[in-house]
Amino acid sequence: MTLKYANRMDQVKGLETREIIKFIGKSDIISFAGGLPAPELFPLEELKEISAKVLEECGSDALQYVPTDGYLPLREMIAERMQKTGVKTSAENILIINGSQQGIDFSGKLFLNPGDVVISEKPCYLGAIGAFRSYQAKFVDIPIDNDGIKVGELEKTLSQTPKAKLIYVTPDFQNPTGISWSVTRRKEFIEVVNKFHLPVIEDNPYGEIRFEGKNIPPIKAFDTEGNVVFLGTFSKILCPGFRIGWICASRELVKKYTMLKEVADLQCNTMAQREVALYLSEYDITININKIRQVYKRRRDLMIQIIKEEFPPEAKYSVPEGGLFLWIEFPKHINGRELLEKTLQEKVAFVPGGCFYPNGGHENSIRLNFSNMPEEKIVVGMKRLAKIIHKEL
Amino acid sequence: MTLKYANRMDQVKGLETREIIKFIGKSDIISFAGGLPAPELFPLEELKEISAKVLEECGSDALQYVPTDGYLPLREMIAERMQKTGVKTSAENILIINGSQQGIDFSGKLFLNPGDVVISEKPCYLGAIGAFRSYQAKFVDIPIDNDGIKVGELEKTLSQTPKAKLIYVTPDFQNPTGISWSVTRRKEFIEVVNKFHLPVIEDNPYGEIRFEGKNIPPIKAFDTEGNVVFLGTFSKILCPGFRIGWICASRELVKKYTMLKEVADLQCNTMAQREVALYLSEYDITININKIRQVYKRRRDLMIQIIKEEFPPEAKYSVPEGGLFLWIEFPKHINGRELLEKTLQEKVAFVPGGCFYPNGGHENSIRLNFSNMPEEKIVVGMKRLAKIIHKEL
Repeated sequence: MTLKYANRMDQVKGLETREIIKFIGKSDIISFAGGLPAPELFPLEELKEISAKVLEECGSDALQYVPTDGYLPLREMIAERMQKTGVKTSAENILIINGSQQGIDFSGKLFLNPGDVVISEKPCYLGAIGAFRSYQAKFVDIPIDNDGIKVGELEKTLSQTPKAKLIYVTPDFQNPTGISWSVTRRKEFIEVVNKFHLPVIEDNPYGEIRFEGKNIPPIKAFDTEGNVVFLGTFSKILCPGFRIGWICASRELVKKYTMLKEVADLQCNTMAQREVALYLSEYDITININKIRQVYKRRRDLMIQIIKEEFPPEAKYSVPEGGLFLWIEFPKHINGRELLEKTLQEKVAFVPGGCFYPNGGHENSIRLNFSNMPEEKIVVGMKRLAKIIHKEL
Repeated sequence: MTLKYANRMDQVKGLETREIIKFIGKSDIISFAGGLPAPELFPLEELKEISAKVLEECGSDALQYVPTDGYLPLREMIAERMQKTGVKTSAENILIINGSQQGIDFSGKLFLNPGDVVISEKPCYLGAIGAFRSYQAKFVDIPIDNDGIKVGELEKTLSQTPKAKLIYVTPDFQNPTGISWSVTRRKEFIEVVNKFHLPVIEDNPYGEIRFEGKNIPPIKAFDTEGNVVFLGTFSKILCPGFRIGWICASRELVKKYTMLKEVADLQCNTMAQREVALYLSEYDITININKIRQVYKRRRDLMIQIIKEEFPPEAKYSVPEGGLFLWIEFPKHINGRELLEKTLQEKVAFVPGGCFYPNGGHENSIRLNFSNMPEEKIVVGMKRLAKIIHKEL
């Protein structure tokens, strides 16, 4: 006899990307699937030193409970880094969380009643779809173009959707498309959302991984009403295994999020918080980030070169200026999920684009990750992909 | 203008213990408040070695994403340790979580609709009250005696409470009372709950910290229906800063919990998982646990000795056979919260007993932690406490 679950569990499903990561971990598959950073770029030697130093200098303090909001020097350093991007903030506006995924989950818990509507980009990060669905949200997704979310459509939707409770966006090198919003679009966006007084969750895991073009301030920098909640993480600029991210928001909101963190898991890993803080104070993380930018740019370039040379011209692709992903759209009769079954036989993986549409459809697209595989594997994998796609078209 | 929160937020409050930890961290207060383990007993030298070895041997694997369910060798070792307590289990029944608090939160999310009833002990761990309330639960709390929950009252309540959806218990050295359930009571309990087919969350952070008396198998060991979810943690037997705990449950339930973990925060800290695993394989953790047992026993003995010698006889106290806490009940006119205000002026802290009653009342009690303070501070703090209590009576 099965136990009786809460109603919300009808909407909770496993994340397909996590399934793929698990599957691939055991195989010789060339994976363009997960959002894994390049492990060879983790500053391993530095982190060995840092890790030893934290235990040497802080002793048992590095292993004990700490207050829920997080290790204060780390919160101060994060606030300082955010200020450099144009966000007026201080340590009191920062809560340390287990990567930005936890910030998405808490945002759902904080704002969403069953049946409430999340306004998202179309397509949208599938981990956000999963998290918000677990609070029984519905989605209305707004089309995007190369400059970001279409604010005209956003305004129209907001005025017609009284159940809209939260706006979730990833303006920098969006997961899955790689698209980044222009400055103008960011300002127009804030103007629109200010009229409706809704919380905006700005998920920004990739903002610092820019290969080309000018740095653009986060939406939070244009926020005049305190409605924007910025989610950051060290997963892509240092390493994901630490599970250290942060929320940057108004003090009132940070207080609410902190209460949710308390009942969720008390606090983040104490040692990891101190390790990140010591790393930031002893090393220049921008040197590490620049290395990441160079390597990922080469990998993106290589991937796009092969698409240009080997893919059929019907495959329309994005050229992201940064981040980890690019996006391909095929003619309607190609189905990404069916394509994956075929490419897995040739030991190549990606994520079918349909996963990123909360209301279904759009199966004729795929997301490719270019950060995790070394160049030689990108060449082999992309050529295999091209061959299969030619057969399908 | 304030943003509109979800309805559940009306019931989310900060945990008073976390507030006290934060407050005390900055002061010279003698604290019997938080549930902090003794930091001088963390195996610091061993963990220095382990931490260096993990990075040396595993390299960037220790810093990368891993599957949500956790590092397999750790899950295997946990399953093996659980088998020794009488629970038939394997790695497939284990999910790694951020301390047992996350298991409580996930249990609320998995089982509770708004208005559902949680059956708990009376009193009950306040972190569980906070977590379940965040899913808009109501509480019906069942009295306990020295052998555990009163199963007659439990059965009566279950048959009269159709909205009962989940039973939360801490049968080993309960937080806050320190009481441990007898074997007979555990068996009777399982007999009763089997009739009602409800999930039982067995929260067991202190089970291994036994000073005297015979080891007793967890309730999970008597579970014939797969309804018991066991929550364990390394916080009290190794260190809390790692945030590594586990869920041990049926495969069906572990699958559900894993989905919740995915959308909540993807996974636990990779390095900490490997550190705990390597520690378990390179060292005998029972040596560490025995050290903890001896020290905590001396501290408990000392605390009880001072209560006997210096407290007024109207103060009724528990004599726990293990764990971190003891419990004092005063005559009705003494209010624990008011008492705390007075003792804080004399720089002594504890947690007022009223915090542990989800439905209020019972303010004439206090919880004392004996694990965190060294003996000389226990003597000074308890004598100060005795003096103030004498004045109040």
